[in-house]
Amino acid sequence: MRDFLPADKARRERVLAVIRERYRAHGFDEIETPVMEEYARLHAGVGGDNEKLAYNVLRRGLDADAIRAAADDPAALTDLGLRYDLTVPLSRFYASHRGELPGVFRAIQIAPVWRAERPQKGRYRQFVQCDIDIIGDASARAEAELAVATLDTVDALGLAGGTIRINDRRALEWMLASFGFADDERPGVLITIDKLDKIGPDGVAAELRERGATAAAVDAFEAFLRRPQTREHTPFGEGQIRTALPDGAPDDVVTHLVQIGETVGAARGAGAGAGTTDVPLVFDPFLVRGMGYYTGTIFELAHPNVTYSLGGGGRYDGMIGRFLGQDMPAVGFSIGFERIVDLVADDEDATATAIVLVHDRDVPLPELVAHKSALVAGGARVRLELRTKNLKALLERAHANGYTAFATVAAGQGGLEVKPLG
Amino acid sequence: MRDFLPADKARRERVLAVIRERYRAHGFDEIETPVMEEYARLHAGVGGDNEKLAYNVLRRGLDADAIRAAADDPAALTDLGLRYDLTVPLSRFYASHRGELPGVFRAIQIAPVWRAERPQKGRYRQFVQCDIDIIGDASARAEAELAVATLDTVDALGLAGGTIRINDRRALEWMLASFGFADDERPGVLITIDKLDKIGPDGVAAELRERGATAAAVDAFEAFLRRPQTREHTPFGEGQIRTALPDGAPDDVVTHLVQIGETVGAARGAGAGAGTTDVPLVFDPFLVRGMGYYTGTIFELAHPNVTYSLGGGGRYDGMIGRFLGQDMPAVGFSIGFERIVDLVADDEDATATAIVLVHDRDVPLPELVAHKSALVAGGARVRLELRTKNLKALLERAHANGYTAFATVAAGQGGLEVKPLG
Repeated sequence: MRDFLPADKARRERVLAVIRERYRAHGFDEIETPVMEEYARLHAGVGGDNEKLAYNVLRRGLDADAIRAAADDPAALTDLGLRYDLTVPLSRFYASHRGELPGVFRAIQIAPVWRAERPQKGRYRQFVQCDIDIIGDASARAEAELAVATLDTVDALGLAGGTIRINDRRALEWMLASFGFADDERPGVLITIDKLDKIGPDGVAAELRERGATAAAVDAFEAFLRRPQTREHTPFGEGQIRTALPDGAPDDVVTHLVQIGETVGAARGAGAGAGTTDVPLVFDPFLVRGMGYYTGTIFELAHPNVTYSLGGGGRYDGMIGRFLGQDMPAVGFSIGFERIVDLVADDEDATATAIVLVHDRDVPLPELVAHKSALVAGGARVRLELRTKNLKALLERAHANGYTAFATVAAGQGGLEVKPLG
Repeated sequence: MRDFLPADKARRERVLAVIRERYRAHGFDEIETPVMEEYARLHAGVGGDNEKLAYNVLRRGLDADAIRAAADDPAALTDLGLRYDLTVPLSRFYASHRGELPGVFRAIQIAPVWRAERPQKGRYRQFVQCDIDIIGDASARAEAELAVATLDTVDALGLAGGTIRINDRRALEWMLASFGFADDERPGVLITIDKLDKIGPDGVAAELRERGATAAAVDAFEAFLRRPQTREHTPFGEGQIRTALPDGAPDDVVTHLVQIGETVGAARGAGAGAGTTDVPLVFDPFLVRGMGYYTGTIFELAHPNVTYSLGGGGRYDGMIGRFLGQDMPAVGFSIGFERIVDLVADDEDATATAIVLVHDRDVPLPELVAHKSALVAGGARVRLELRTKNLKALLERAHANGYTAFATVAAGQGGLEVKPLG
């Protein structure tokens, strides 16, 4: 968990404001839920491995007997926990407030989540997620709206050139079945396939054999992986999707993917990203995504500047039903805020002149603060600084901190002369 | 703890953006700390009653023996807790990062805090505080900058007319000593004085007698409370302050208060609030403020629209020294966000046209989403809505949700005609 100093915090808030504004422009509405949810809800089995990483809050009012009794049932020590993602809270929120929400609900959630990860580079115990979700739309329109809003947001952050890797869990399941992997070995096979980018086809085949997966299925899968056309990812469209999959892929899945592509392409041509002729989607039949709750489309946000993904999401049609008691289609996309904020250029927000007002020690306080207030009322951002012997160094430091102008104030001075810095 | 639906969340974010922007204009820099702090730091005795209300986080990896052993030492069950205010984290932050911060550090913190309060109207277990603090300035300039920034922010929220009630803990202590209250009975006397607005001079005198406070001191104090000039609060200035206190009030305390008044008056005349001739300060010799850590000036934000305070703060020169190991002047002012957000007018942010795009079911997805993207690229905020039989009701609902225009889309339609709503 980290402290953020002024320069970092200002950049974070600037990036969040852009994300929030772009998401809203695309018709999404922001909601907020408490950081704590009930323990039972956080540990209902939908959060996957993240459930184990949840911070649990000590139940209040436990006496010595209750603590002793909890030695055999540690869950009795806690009744609340910090959320480890924004999807479980959204599902609970939707089930609680459905009557007050539109039939197709487009939600924004921009908020921190917590996981008790081992500290390592790029992993934090408190980090911000920026999620958009569409609940109540089973059509490809939902995926397309999410993809277009995400790409437009990334463009607005000065990171044009993003692409979305896309796959469908149903295609994955079908493909594994078609090679002859048994139902019960498929979850393990998916975990191995998820490493394809890191360990390559050789590594995947070796690991599958080590796992003891059905030998004939591994052979067939390895041969398929080694076909040259399997790893050809563009241009996105029905032909490429069918080529990249084994013969006979289910029509409904292919059609859904093709519709997403056509819709994203038309929207990008008409609006944000206008002038681009390529569909910014890449079909990747081996994209897995870790979470167990995905039921259809899955995606990841890629960018040429980095080798890791900048976000991801997918369809989780079964999850809201667990809270709501009836089926409800849902799909979401999350921008990895902590990763993206480091890529955004560090230009100070230029909406207001930032003036450092360097004053002598003997300027009477009413005079001094009146000078400041007059400049603030004129639209500037103003900081007072006591004059030091080395004025040059003081001004250089102010400039490095984003101040763009300065003025000096002596006792009894009338008007100020504001001069540019740097 | 509450969920926030779209309309509420949008208003909260609008209000927070104004507060953040105004605070920044006055030369304050935002920082952020993790929501969890070490248990020992949260329970170091500086948080007063709030320490008892802290949510503690269950220590990870406790085995059955460790849980059993904790029956006699429940603190062993926890190592982290959720912050109950922003002042303890700021003190820890400042001690950790002092070398990277300016000599006079003006901090903004806008963030939630948690207290396990009994649920009651207007009290929440998770609520947002908006704090500004100045660390490293012992002069009245610090109080004046805080007061001016706070009043300007309240003005910018459309709540002009705010005033700040002000007192000094040193004046209170001196006054109680001058009446003859003993050192050890003063904390209890302060608790009773804090109720003056509710129970009046009779109630205060009665309660002090009940407490068994020194009888002669209570008599002297009661006589003083009943003087007419004791409760005359304006105009703010040395004459009024000396009149409102017993004779012989300490010069340094009175001078500090007078300087704050002169500086705030000059700044308001020159900048935000320009044209007002009155100093928006009210000296209240019986203002107490609950927290034990205040050492000097204390203030509360009052507004004619409400009977309760909208914020408050004070000087806590001793607190940062506990973390830093050396004395450091500090003073802060916190806007009570949850109270103020309900007073702000509910006008939708008018920066972007908000268009609801009502479409037939058979509009092909690429066509539909391309229409949307073209409008978004033109600067609008756009939501798609499937046309229902009762178009009028649909449009009225959209208008109530802040949408200002609409267009209908049929399959194969070329340009859209955007019409105003309502």
